[in-house]
Amino acid sequence: MADKREKKHALREICRTAARVFYDKGYDGASMQDIADAVGLTKAGLYHHVGSKDRLLFEIMNYGMDILDELVVSKVRDIADPCERLRRTITGHIDLVVRTRDLEITVILHENRSLKGELRRMINARKQAYIHLLEQTIAEVQAQVSDPPRLSPRLAAFALLGMINWLYQWYHPDGPVKEVELAATYVDFFFRGLLGASGALGELLRRDPVS
Amino acid sequence: MADKREKKHALREICRTAARVFYDKGYDGASMQDIADAVGLTKAGLYHHVGSKDRLLFEIMNYGMDILDELVVSKVRDIADPCERLRRTITGHIDLVVRTRDLEITVILHENRSLKGELRRMINARKQAYIHLLEQTIAEVQAQVSDPPRLSPRLAAFALLGMINWLYQWYHPDGPVKEVELAATYVDFFFRGLLGASGALGELLRRDPVS
Repeated sequence: MADKREKKHALREICRTAARVFYDKGYDGASMQDIADAVGLTKAGLYHHVGSKDRLLFEIMNYGMDILDELVVSKVRDIADPCERLRRTITGHIDLVVRTRDLEITVILHENRSLKGELRRMINARKQAYIHLLEQTIAEVQAQVSDPPRLSPRLAAFALLGMINWLYQWYHPDGPVKEVELAATYVDFFFRGLLGASGALGELLRRDPVS
Repeated sequence: MADKREKKHALREICRTAARVFYDKGYDGASMQDIADAVGLTKAGLYHHVGSKDRLLFEIMNYGMDILDELVVSKVRDIADPCERLRRTITGHIDLVVRTRDLEITVILHENRSLKGELRRMINARKQAYIHLLEQTIAEVQAQVSDPPRLSPRLAAFALLGMINWLYQWYHPDGPVKEVELAATYVDFFFRGLLGASGALGELLRRDPVS
């Protein structure tokens, strides 16, 4: 077991460093030698750990989805009240995207044109599972109010993903807008877009959670 | 003048084809020879038209911003009613992103890590001008209602850009959601998020435009 954990830890360190190299040079522009140099391994040692360049890209994306599961999904999955679950999902996902530590991994996760075939399908299946979780939570929130605006949970889920994932294009944690203000603003904006009446979130969250 | 127009036309054709090559192989993975082959020029001929690989990437992005100006901004700029101006901006921008014809240019426009220095600053200045236009229109819409929800026009503008620009990641024009439904849904969602009360857009647009 300790050996397995060590292997996973080593793979994650390789993924972090390789993500920075891909981010700087592009997937096609970075050679396995560049990555071996950055990681401090021989090229043979790197291939021993990751198998191939394709597989390395897959491992980086898979690691990105692991981080999403660990830091967001696992923390909200068991929250009974759908409004609170949605609020915590939004703030957790925003926190993940704006943390500079994993910026490169987050960016690479969404540039998945370089990944082909079965590896691409495996990553897309993990993304679909997250979208499905968002859709389901959104539908449950809609069911909490009488006569909510007509809005497909799927289109709402993608609007939310767009708002959040686009942050890496423009948001700087050391700029004028602090993360806590950003997250509160986006939560309020999304709930208004979803439910219409302003203040709906406040009212819903003050009620006893329904389970 | 005709000569200048012809040059511009030739440059745009090169940009379209080169964008497809960059999209397929990545900016770093595509050589100028690859692009010359795809365009049907010698490598010397290609360099004559575009100067350098950096410059070619800049020209593609600049073309992307030209398309945004021609198909969206120029058509809405003079609309006096800010609600109608915002609605038309959203539907026009969505139309631009989901048109498959210019998909590669749209994608490359947002992967601007490969562009450096002055060329990067020039593209970013054009993007800033568009964001500023969105912010201003959003502020004018907020001023149309009494006591709108507190929401920074800048954060709202970036939420909107995220929703729209993310479409290329998931939306397929031949899927179950037609573009006209998508656009109407996103317009309604955004106006509700901005103004709170559902139906606010309908009410605002039925009023006489204020100028």
